[in-house]
Amino acid sequence: MYFSDDEYSHEFIGIGIGINELDRSDPSFNLETESRAAMAVSSHDPAAKVLRRILERPGVQLGPACFDALSAKLIESAGFSYCFTSGFSICAARLGLPDTGLISYGEMFDHGLLLTQAVSIPIIADADNGFGNPINLKRTVKGFIRAGFAGILLEDQLSPKACGHTPGRKVLSRQQAIVNIKAAVDARSESGSDIVIVARTDARQAVSLHEALLRVQAFADAGADVLFIDALASVQEMRAFCQVSPHIPKMANMLEGGGKTPILTPQQLGDIGYKIVVYPLSLLGVSIRAMQDALTALKEGLVPPPGTMPSFEEIKDIVGFNTYYQEEKRYAIGVSSEGDISRDPSSGVRPQTLRVKVAGKDGFEKLDLRIPAGSLDGLTNIVPALAGVNIKELMDNAVEEIGGKKLLDFSDSMDERIQVFLE
Amino acid sequence: MYFSDDEYSHEFIGIGIGINELDRSDPSFNLETESRAAMAVSSHDPAAKVLRRILERPGVQLGPACFDALSAKLIESAGFSYCFTSGFSICAARLGLPDTGLISYGEMFDHGLLLTQAVSIPIIADADNGFGNPINLKRTVKGFIRAGFAGILLEDQLSPKACGHTPGRKVLSRQQAIVNIKAAVDARSESGSDIVIVARTDARQAVSLHEALLRVQAFADAGADVLFIDALASVQEMRAFCQVSPHIPKMANMLEGGGKTPILTPQQLGDIGYKIVVYPLSLLGVSIRAMQDALTALKEGLVPPPGTMPSFEEIKDIVGFNTYYQEEKRYAIGVSSEGDISRDPSSGVRPQTLRVKVAGKDGFEKLDLRIPAGSLDGLTNIVPALAGVNIKELMDNAVEEIGGKKLLDFSDSMDERIQVFLE
Amino acid sequence: MYFSDDEYSHEFIGIGIGINELDRSDPSFNLETESRAAMAVSSHDPAAKVLRRILERPGVQLGPACFDALSAKLIESAGFSYCFTSGFSICAARLGLPDTGLISYGEMFDHGLLLTQAVSIPIIADADNGFGNPINLKRTVKGFIRAGFAGILLEDQLSPKACGHTPGRKVLSRQQAIVNIKAAVDARSESGSDIVIVARTDARQAVSLHEALLRVQAFADAGADVLFIDALASVQEMRAFCQVSPHIPKMANMLEGGGKTPILTPQQLGDIGYKIVVYPLSLLGVSIRAMQDALTALKEGLVPPPGTMPSFEEIKDIVGFNTYYQEEKRYAIGVSSEGDISRDPSSGVRPQTLRVKVAGKDGFEKLDLRIPAGSLDGLTNIVPALAGVNIKELMDNAVEEIGGKKLLDFSDSMDERIQVFLE
Amino acid sequence: MYFSDDEYSHEFIGIGIGINELDRSDPSFNLETESRAAMAVSSHDPAAKVLRRILERPGVQLGPACFDALSAKLIESAGFSYCFTSGFSICAARLGLPDTGLISYGEMFDHGLLLTQAVSIPIIADADNGFGNPINLKRTVKGFIRAGFAGILLEDQLSPKACGHTPGRKVLSRQQAIVNIKAAVDARSESGSDIVIVARTDARQAVSLHEALLRVQAFADAGADVLFIDALASVQEMRAFCQVSPHIPKMANMLEGGGKTPILTPQQLGDIGYKIVVYPLSLLGVSIRAMQDALTALKEGLVPPPGTMPSFEEIKDIVGFNTYYQEEKRYAIGVSSEGDISRDPSSGVRPQTLRVKVAGKDGFEKLDLRIPAGSLDGLTNIVPALAGVNIKELMDNAVEEIGGKKLLDFSDSMDERIQVFLE
Repeated sequence: MYFSDDEYSHEFIGIGIGINELDRSDPSFNLETESRAAMAVSSHDPAAKVLRRILERPGVQLGPACFDALSAKLIESAGFSYCFTSGFSICAARLGLPDTGLISYGEMFDHGLLLTQAVSIPIIADADNGFGNPINLKRTVKGFIRAGFAGILLEDQLSPKACGHTPGRKVLSRQQAIVNIKAAVDARSESGSDIVIVARTDARQAVSLHEALLRVQAFADAGADVLFIDALASVQEMRAFCQVSPHIPKMANMLEGGGKTPILTPQQLGDIGYKIVVYPLSLLGVSIRAMQDALTALKEGLVPPPGTMPSFEEIKDIVGFNTYYQEEKRYAIGVSSEGDISRDPSSGVRPQTLRVKVAGKDGFEKLDLRIPAGSLDGLTNIVPALAGVNIKELMDNAVEEIGGKKLLDFSDSMDERIQVFLE
Repeated sequence: MYFSDDEYSHEFIGIGIGINELDRSDPSFNLETESRAAMAVSSHDPAAKVLRRILERPGVQLGPACFDALSAKLIESAGFSYCFTSGFSICAARLGLPDTGLISYGEMFDHGLLLTQAVSIPIIADADNGFGNPINLKRTVKGFIRAGFAGILLEDQLSPKACGHTPGRKVLSRQQAIVNIKAAVDARSESGSDIVIVARTDARQAVSLHEALLRVQAFADAGADVLFIDALASVQEMRAFCQVSPHIPKMANMLEGGGKTPILTPQQLGDIGYKIVVYPLSLLGVSIRAMQDALTALKEGLVPPPGTMPSFEEIKDIVGFNTYYQEEKRYAIGVSSEGDISRDPSSGVRPQTLRVKVAGKDGFEKLDLRIPAGSLDGLTNIVPALAGVNIKELMDNAVEEIGGKKLLDFSDSMDERIQVFLE
Repeated sequence: MYFSDDEYSHEFIGIGIGINELDRSDPSFNLETESRAAMAVSSHDPAAKVLRRILERPGVQLGPACFDALSAKLIESAGFSYCFTSGFSICAARLGLPDTGLISYGEMFDHGLLLTQAVSIPIIADADNGFGNPINLKRTVKGFIRAGFAGILLEDQLSPKACGHTPGRKVLSRQQAIVNIKAAVDARSESGSDIVIVARTDARQAVSLHEALLRVQAFADAGADVLFIDALASVQEMRAFCQVSPHIPKMANMLEGGGKTPILTPQQLGDIGYKIVVYPLSLLGVSIRAMQDALTALKEGLVPPPGTMPSFEEIKDIVGFNTYYQEEKRYAIGVSSEGDISRDPSSGVRPQTLRVKVAGKDGFEKLDLRIPAGSLDGLTNIVPALAGVNIKELMDNAVEEIGGKKLLDFSDSMDERIQVFLE
Repeated sequence: MYFSDDEYSHEFIGIGIGINELDRSDPSFNLETESRAAMAVSSHDPAAKVLRRILERPGVQLGPACFDALSAKLIESAGFSYCFTSGFSICAARLGLPDTGLISYGEMFDHGLLLTQAVSIPIIADADNGFGNPINLKRTVKGFIRAGFAGILLEDQLSPKACGHTPGRKVLSRQQAIVNIKAAVDARSESGSDIVIVARTDARQAVSLHEALLRVQAFADAGADVLFIDALASVQEMRAFCQVSPHIPKMANMLEGGGKTPILTPQQLGDIGYKIVVYPLSLLGVSIRAMQDALTALKEGLVPPPGTMPSFEEIKDIVGFNTYYQEEKRYAIGVSSEGDISRDPSSGVRPQTLRVKVAGKDGFEKLDLRIPAGSLDGLTNIVPALAGVNIKELMDNAVEEIGGKKLLDFSDSMDERIQVFLE
């Protein structure tokens, strides 16, 4: 390491103080802080507001990464209070492509809309490096606000990635990285939003721990709400990170089975000083393995055994069929238990209707007729085959069913098919 | 049941013959058939061509349903020759919504593009009922051709779904259903495409087996390439279906753990007469269960154990990181083993370059300098700290590495950090 | 006509009163009204809030229809306080298709995002009939809220349009139409939004003026904010319309050169009782004519004469190049007039840097070097050709320029090209 | 200028020959050329094929730039054989943003799909610099092939645009620029496509004419189909350009009223040696002016006078209403002039149906009944008010009308409204 731990912590604190002092004496910066405080009251981002409250809760807050609407829904159903996203998973699920700078702003924006419409818990977006220069980045922040995200993670990697992974070229200059966070803060302010800005640096691997600590301190001073250093290599480093701007929440990324950062328990992470802990790959990873296993069996024509997937009815419930059916009833026209609906033209319901269909021997419709239940006289003149049928009684017996019911289905002596429905 | 099995098979065959005779005497229909034959030669749909060849193979052909790019990739990797899609799974994954007529044409088109760009095996789209009247349906067919689908499944359900699920209202009239297939055939022809039209009827449940058999026969006569009756209720019914237009491939839908149709082995389905067999829910279902299990553990801060998900490196390989790295090398500039590249200005490579970075004690960049390896004289005048370093030797030892290498990283006596890279 | 003018006005008022009375006694309805009032305070839709304020202004409010981001920008620049959209124009511009039910929800949603991101004035969306049943309609309303619209126009036409334009089939039943408006109100409430619901009926042409008046009255009672009857055929009819629910704003559609409704002046429309007046086709129409004329000339190789289009510089200004340049300066790194920036690591600027490029006679780069302005000693050791050049003086003279400046560009005695930039 | 005209032409030819010789001796390159020749026969890009034929026509070929579906349609209607696009116009129309690297790949792809679906003439896409590194660029080329473009213009500008417009930083290195064109050629080949690659250099302004000429020569050698140097400053420079690789078509960009390149007539451009001539701003420019003028008048409530826009009927025809109506008839069910349709179950038509609607005095539907025209007996039992009406005669008189007709609409003695339609 370039600086020893003793050195950096000392130096870091010194620089940190300097920056804070500067800020206090910078009227424009105070102004900005005030306008943000004012905004917190009249925020137009309910999702951001909820996320900010989560950040104020005691204890670490766990957030698995979703990558599509379904995984977001499952996270919400499992009781998590927010969702993370990872560009890695989204590139994989949406495009089947590696997370190497291929996905563009427009695609991430589109995907974001899909995620946020699916759940009511707040979602933190992965915005890579903002997809270009500071003006591109501002467009990205404003777009992600419009997409309904509650938070946005911005990193200081270079993009488009140059060919060749030279260590020294992976991150923006520190100044550029800070300007980017300032631009993000400006974009938030210009949008009248209160989106949570999670500032990430990749400088730990690209440069040094020292540089990474300097950067997150500067990000905090520039207005970031949550700090994150990618790929910290030890608990000692994690502790050093959590000492930066102690009042600013820190994020830990538990890269399942592959990262440089030790996998710790939420309790351990909380003790170190982290506030939010995200799991970027779990849901993607277990889905891949489960699909691979299922495909191996399907090659032999074997469908997944019952224990390995929910029943069709369970799946239907998960994706909202039952909610849909309830909505159907809510806006159904034609059945009512609210008394005499004929007096309420705005009630959204209508009296029972009888529908009679007659099909000829050749299968073709001959008649399709709807009659209000109160106007059944003369029906047998049109459909003689119904003579003798006690329609009223059939209807009374059927009255409890919602959504229509087939009362009769028979062939008459002419081999015509007669069907009677209550609608 | 309205017709007994004995009745329907007799009547069905009679009607089937009549329609075939009609077609033979209809010059416009022959013309259409001819133009389609001509098109097969100069087809603009390589994907459709591949799918048609698969349909000509002996034996049943299995196709799991994908719902995003990743699941499509996994199906391809597992060795399947084609993918099915299911609107059910796509609604679930993309939107977290039930498959109740909520997803619109534009969204399915967008999603289709994501699927087809991810794999090279042909994909059969689920186009619901074509999203409206016959002209909407034609737009849908043309759009799905443009989206790169090899096949398109069209059903005869009503849409938008009326409130209430009355049996008699679920399907279009037979005439309308047939007109729709004709419109699809017209759209294909007008696009100069050879997309495989899979005609599905829902009339088995909505009306009767008899009606369903009549419909698929008529669909075949109208130009459908593959036939499908949803929700056949017995092996006997499946046999009856496979006797319709014996030269036209039949599709079976093995609704995993929830449908009315018996789950049979591929061998059994092949013996009955099916050509393609699809598994609409397996991948979605096992993913849901795996995610649910993972989320239960994550609530306790437990990441998935190693056996339940691939390693990070495996996942990276699945989504194409290694392919990306190969592409990077293919188009890399700056390192070459092909001899004297300086004589080849179009070779896409450049001579080795030395990069020297100097950072002051305060962490700020003081110098960032690139020099062609052939112009190193005078370097120590600029960076005195390099005096005495045998740069040439460092470079020679490093020459085999691709993508740049850090040769040196040290602090000089002024506490300035000096880094030297070979690019 | 079914009712004479004298009859309908009398009857309408009677029914209107009845409905109002009903509402007053309906506690659930009052509750809804109250929750809406509460929402107006904490609204998450600043755009909707602005539009509501516009509706409260005295006098008629004019709103041309935009169809893309550019036309929206021009409307804003011309000083209008809000934009209308027309599905007709959007179908034409986005798809080149007629407005006959071809465009789907997903496409309209995507297009809506493009319009709303372009301007800060509120935009009223054209949502056709909500794209399906009441649950589709609710999804549409929620989606359009998310897309950033301030208002949403919903009509009671049938969709997908049946083949054949029978007069009696054009509109939903009145009950269904009212349920739809209720569903829209519910969707707004569930979204925590205050989007302005503009309820349109097409019943004037499809059924009768009487039916149209009954419908808009019921729409108002169901929670619509603005009322609109399409294709009123006379000033007398317009007056009758404006007498419905006098406290609810009325919208007039001035279909330029083609509609059934008389084209009146804003003054006249205001006197009749209208609040907002929209011009659905003007911008699309004049664009078409202008493009047709330009294409006729281009066929002969004649570019548009100066008077017929803005200069390139004017166009660049209209689409925001100058705004972009200001943003560039705002986030530029490298030049500062704020004093000694080297002491401010978070200032977003960096000290002046000198860049020296040397290209060989063959055109290939030999050297590309950046040196902080304070470390120029030794430069001539690397680039002997610079010996004798007073770099300092060049830099001092250049200091006022923003964004970098070429200081030198010359060939040396070896025919190598030397360029020096100040960055 | 750095090189005199005499020098560059001599030097350029020398280098050009060298590259050609290299290519001839490079078997992999020949292989590629051959596979491309083979592909031309079995091309999967009919649009590209048409564009290649246009390039082989004698004389210059004019192509205005479209920016949305409507402008593309108007270009096609005006008789042009192909469309250009300009990123400038698309950014303006789609986003209301300047063409400064803000629009992303995903957005351009989406927009491309809108353009290509609207017309049958080939369209040349503006792909900027390919949106990133060579692998991004390959994704862009493959995506634009999938979007249906016939040609793709690729430039060698840097992106994302750095802050500050320093001349020396605007273009990629020559080697990188050449690698990009090679990558584009590879992407085309890997897609099995024959898309026309238009290689553009911005080096004329960024570096020198000499550099620009070197680049386009190298682009041609790398497989580009059409060459373009942006911002040539004189006829002399244009002549020098057209002497490069004489067999490769050259493109001229007639930037209307603002560029550095002289505006010449098609005849003059053809004489110089150009093959295709594009007009990037005309349609956007005249639309802006026309809209500005219309908005000035609308501020006063004045709609555009008749001469300045087409009539509503003309506009409807332009966007395809009449085509839609024809399609409606083509797939209409219910009316036929082809004889006894009842014998043809697949004819897509159905017998005439009578629809009878009865509304009570309160405006609510009491009956809605459809009866095949052959089953009218007994109708008056259900609707006594029809007693005495000669329905048959009414139907016979109405039979020629398409799409349904209202036969009757009256109130009976009970003040119920009776309507009879023929469907």
